[in-house]
Order: sequence, then structure tokens, then C-alpha cells
Amino acid sequence: MLRRKEVEFWFEFASTYSYPAAMLLEDTASTAGVRVTYKPFLLGPIFARQGWSDSPFNLYPTKGAYMWRDMERICSAQSIPFSRPSAFPRNGLLAARIACAFAEEPWLPAYVRAIYRANFAQDQDISQRDVVAGVLQDLGLISEDIFERALAVENKEALRAQTERAEQIGIFGAPTFVVGQELFWGSDRMLQALEFAAA
Amino acid sequence: MLRRKEVEFWFEFASTYSYPAAMLLEDTASTAGVRVTYKPFLLGPIFARQGWSDSPFNLYPTKGAYMWRDMERICSAQSIPFSRPSAFPRNGLLAARIACAFAEEPWLPAYVRAIYRANFAQDQDISQRDVVAGVLQDLGLISEDIFERALAVENKEALRAQTERAEQIGIFGAPTFVVGQELFWGSDRMLQALEFAAA
Repeated sequence: MLRRKEVEFWFEFASTYSYPAAMLLEDTASTAGVRVTYKPFLLGPIFARQGWSDSPFNLYPTKGAYMWRDMERICSAQSIPFSRPSAFPRNGLLAARIACAFAEEPWLPAYVRAIYRANFAQDQDISQRDVVAGVLQDLGLISEDIFERALAVENKEALRAQTERAEQIGIFGAPTFVVGQELFWGSDRMLQALEFAAA
Repeated sequence: MLRRKEVEFWFEFASTYSYPAAMLLEDTASTAGVRVTYKPFLLGPIFARQGWSDSPFNLYPTKGAYMWRDMERICSAQSIPFSRPSAFPRNGLLAARIACAFAEEPWLPAYVRAIYRANFAQDQDISQRDVVAGVLQDLGLISEDIFERALAVENKEALRAQTERAEQIGIFGAPTFVVGQELFWGSDRMLQALEFAAA
């Protein structure tokens, strides 16, 4: 159980709608007086169990076309830079392992935003170690130390367990905001989740 | 092309999220100074073309569980009566044929709301002719005359064509609000669509 005034932000680096949520979350939560806990997980295993071998936005092109236009509108309205990536979805495993290992670090929110920006504003391949290393170095971090801990067996297992936990609590997409027993799915539910947590 | 200050409301009577949208639409659009055009269609043929023989909320139970809880919250927050129907989805074909035939009638918005209430607040089987007749009679209408026009070959064809049109313009779920070339999917996008139309 969460304490009051706390929201869990369950996100996947490949997830389009998680991008504007991640960009706005810290400021919005701060205004609402709510603390954010970062919960990276992987959608791949959850989608696979529903019989999907790809993003539903690729499997269902009409829905995908809507999503890309919707992303443009959302990011434009919020003044968030957005450029449709030349590849989608990009594998966020390495980036997620780092977020999982260092979820409590003060630099974590800035790291999360920077990875999302790399993918959805700068069209960089975030599955590549040198791209992630560049993000870490821009934050003034020593990337080799971070990779070592992120790639340790126990951390790989921790991310796997977190993904299983996501499924257990009923998460089926990203972003999902969790406040106690309540789930709020979608970037457009961020405010509702924060208001619920703050009440 | 639509004129400015107009929104098309594409809805399906079996669709859960279309219910709160339908209940709030007239008042919200009136406040925004936007005219609503009612566009009933059927999700069944659109889902079937994606390989689904049932509602995705039934095919993907985790998503379905979230949706039912979300409906409770949305309706509670808006003071809309809601009771999870004992059967889902209910076949809205007859009700949609009537909405298609009489889309321009002044009683149409009240009829749409009453059919949704029957399904999602009163747990009535809206696929049944006597249930729909009861709704029409409560509105002071002569149901036999209405059924005759709704069940005419040309009106059946009109609803079929409207469903095909939905697919052509990129609709994949309900409710969808259409303003010119822009689609807004989901009850939670109603305000955004109205603001876009009013701008």
C-alpha cells in the first residue's frame, strides 16, 4: 500500500504516450504536492501474453495513425518537442534496467526525460548503449559504473519482477498511474491521478 | 467538410465510454456554442475486420476490469447513474437504426440518452424491440411508425454505409468526435473536441 500523497508512475521507454507524461510529471506533481515513485517496466512480455508480437499501434494501423496525430497535438499543446521516430517501438530494455536500478536517485527524473527526448524528439536509437551512455554523460554521471550495476543479474531480475508485478496489479498499458488500489491509464489521466493522490 | 462550430458524435450503443459522453454532450456543446451531429455506427464490423469476434474488453480481461472500474469513477464524478450491465456488449443494432433514420429530429438526443440509460443504468436489454419501444413511448413517440422507417431497406443500408464511412475516416472505437479532419477518441476527449470546434 502506498502512503497518501504518493503516485506510482509505471512507464515503458518505448511507449509514446508515456513521453508527454514523463515530461510534465515532476512539475505537475510538485504543484499538486504529490511524491512520484518511478516504476519502469516492459510492455513486451505483457503484450506477448495477449498474443501480440508487436505494438498494437503497429498491429492495428488505423489506431496507430490516430495515435501519431494525437501525439503531435498533445506535444504541440504542451510545447513539448516531438518528432515521429523513424523506428517504432524502440527497445527500451537497457534504459529501463538503469531506471530500475537507480529509481530512487535524485537524477532519475531528469534521466527518464532525457531518454524519452532522445527517442521521441531526437530520433535516437535508445536501444544502443552509446546513446544511453551519452544521456548519462550529459547528466554528469559516470556511465560505466551505472551500466555495471544495471546489467548485474540481480537488477535484471528486479526489472523482470517489476514487470510481473505490473501485470499482477492489472496494468496493461503505459503510462499507468497507481494510487493505492486505483489505476489511471493514459497520459490524459495524469491530473486525475494526482488529484486523487492529493485528496 | 464540416462547417466550423460543428462536431460529429460517432457512437455505438454497446460502447461503455459512449454512455457518459452521450449524457453530457448536449449541455457541454451548448455551453461551448457548438452544434452536434449524431452519427450512430456499429463497432462489430470494424472489430471483425481487426480479427475480433467480441469486445476487446472481453477479449482482454485485464483491460476490461480497468474499464469497468473507470466507468464507475467517471459516472460517479459526473453524477451519472451507472450499473454494470448483466450482459456486455448488448446488440445496439435496432436502436442504432432508429438513431440513423431520425438523426435530425429534435427528440434524437433525448432518445440516445434514454437508450444508453436503459443499457448502463437500468440493465435493460436494448437489443429487444419492446425495450426500445418503451423508450420511444416514454418520449411521447409512436413506436410502430418509427420502427417501420428504421427497418426499411434503405435505412438499413444507410447505417451500413455510415459504418463504412466511419472506417474510411479512421474511426476504430467509440465514442469518436470528429471536427473537420481531426478525430478525438474517447469520452475524455469530448471537451478537447468541443474547444477545437469552437476555436
